[in-house]
Amino acid sequence: MCPAKIADGQQRGFIIPIGGAEERVDDPIILQRFVELCGDENANIVIIPTASQLAETGPNYEIIFRNLNVKNAISLPINSREDAEREDYLAALENATGIFITGGNQLRLSTILGGTSVAQSIRKLNSEGVHVAGTSAGAAIMPEHMIAGGSTGALPNEQGVTFAPGLGLISKVLLDQHFSQRNRLGRLLSAVSYNPFASGLGICENTAAFIAPDGLLEVVGHGSITVVDPSDLQHSSMAEARTGDSITLIGLKLHMLSNGDTYCLNTRVASPKAV
Amino acid sequence: MCPAKIADGQQRGFIIPIGGAEERVDDPIILQRFVELCGDENANIVIIPTASQLAETGPNYEIIFRNLNVKNAISLPINSREDAEREDYLAALENATGIFITGGNQLRLSTILGGTSVAQSIRKLNSEGVHVAGTSAGAAIMPEHMIAGGSTGALPNEQGVTFAPGLGLISKVLLDQHFSQRNRLGRLLSAVSYNPFASGLGICENTAAFIAPDGLLEVVGHGSITVVDPSDLQHSSMAEARTGDSITLIGLKLHMLSNGDTYCLNTRVASPKAV
Repeated sequence: MCPAKIADGQQRGFIIPIGGAEERVDDPIILQRFVELCGDENANIVIIPTASQLAETGPNYEIIFRNLNVKNAISLPINSREDAEREDYLAALENATGIFITGGNQLRLSTILGGTSVAQSIRKLNSEGVHVAGTSAGAAIMPEHMIAGGSTGALPNEQGVTFAPGLGLISKVLLDQHFSQRNRLGRLLSAVSYNPFASGLGICENTAAFIAPDGLLEVVGHGSITVVDPSDLQHSSMAEARTGDSITLIGLKLHMLSNGDTYCLNTRVASPKAV
Repeated sequence: MCPAKIADGQQRGFIIPIGGAEERVDDPIILQRFVELCGDENANIVIIPTASQLAETGPNYEIIFRNLNVKNAISLPINSREDAEREDYLAALENATGIFITGGNQLRLSTILGGTSVAQSIRKLNSEGVHVAGTSAGAAIMPEHMIAGGSTGALPNEQGVTFAPGLGLISKVLLDQHFSQRNRLGRLLSAVSYNPFASGLGICENTAAFIAPDGLLEVVGHGSITVVDPSDLQHSSMAEARTGDSITLIGLKLHMLSNGDTYCLNTRVASPKAV
């Protein structure tokens, strides 16, 4: 699914995938930056805890956001497709200045939210300027094509990644989380090589990509974002590879980005932090 | 140390770094290919087992090479700097058509062989056409700049790699072994970013780079060689990084190569296996 169309005179909100394990108490720079974008003391944050099977996940984030002095933070305990049609939840979303999708299992997000009114609402609200952040599974669900699973390790392989349709808030990236912590370069390389149309983003824990409406991504946090740009890919053996074969990929571009660095998803130009 | 000069009318031998754990009995394609280069049934292989502290390492390779039907395979148990001056060992080297350096600890190779007559002989013989293969530590020791140690993981860091001077058989590469098996991308990225003059090669186990005298590298084996080419590196934060900082590296080229693919160390062009 492609991002929802933007109406005349409106601007899309930020898309903010976070690599998981973002700092929530001491120096929570990612959540603080998200709250600032959403209006600080006027921010109205709606939390979607659906990926998590722990009942306390949503309420915990309510407390975290209230401690950041937002106007309001409310979690919607959507645990079924019926929940994802509730009028009161949709009304709460309509008041949001920011939506936060928690971690857990991204297949819970896609199976419970996919095609529901809540999913439609998130897409529409983002196209109208509401910012959407998600951590771990909540980041995974954002793109058109969601990485649902795959191999651990540094090398791509023929069965290195499994996809599922995502929320479609953004279509120009494939992204993975807990990137260095879970040694996921191989599955990101597999993902970009299946169809080299998109940039691959490998987001470390406690690190976020703040993707502005104009497609400019800024790194915020303590870790790295690994960008794999296959736009000049000259050769891939992925189509002919059999199980266990080593994969040939010639002509990838690789950028290791850290806090303050930027990458434009449209021009594919990476730039260091301005000094 | 740069590679020894080539005399008029002579051609350097191949340099063959192997990523460790090469298959030695069933389908030993790397060792077989090395033996073919060295003259097959006329091959005279001299084994340098210095990296290993196991007395059986050298004799075991004698058996492995004899099973490949070479004319002669002899191991020189060089365990001290005095051993590395022995006339009988130097005489044995003079008869070699191929030299094989075993695995173990590359700092044993550099500390025991560095500056000795055996080291000089290996360099001279290679410049005269004798092929030199080395596995694991025996591969590490080959370049001018040897990776002696470093961090595990996918990300570069300010203290991500330690160097020591190597044998200097080749100066255009930095190389690492057991590459995907030991998750060493970060230390290879650290290495190439310290001084981006050389291509970085990450060689997997049971995989070799057959580097011809003209600088054309061919991949032989079951795994991958990851090539990191920093020749277009636009920005590196390595010089300013403090301990623990994430590192910014913008503009690396990345190739994943497999059996039969080539990479020219002079032109830095990667090519897929000819079909």
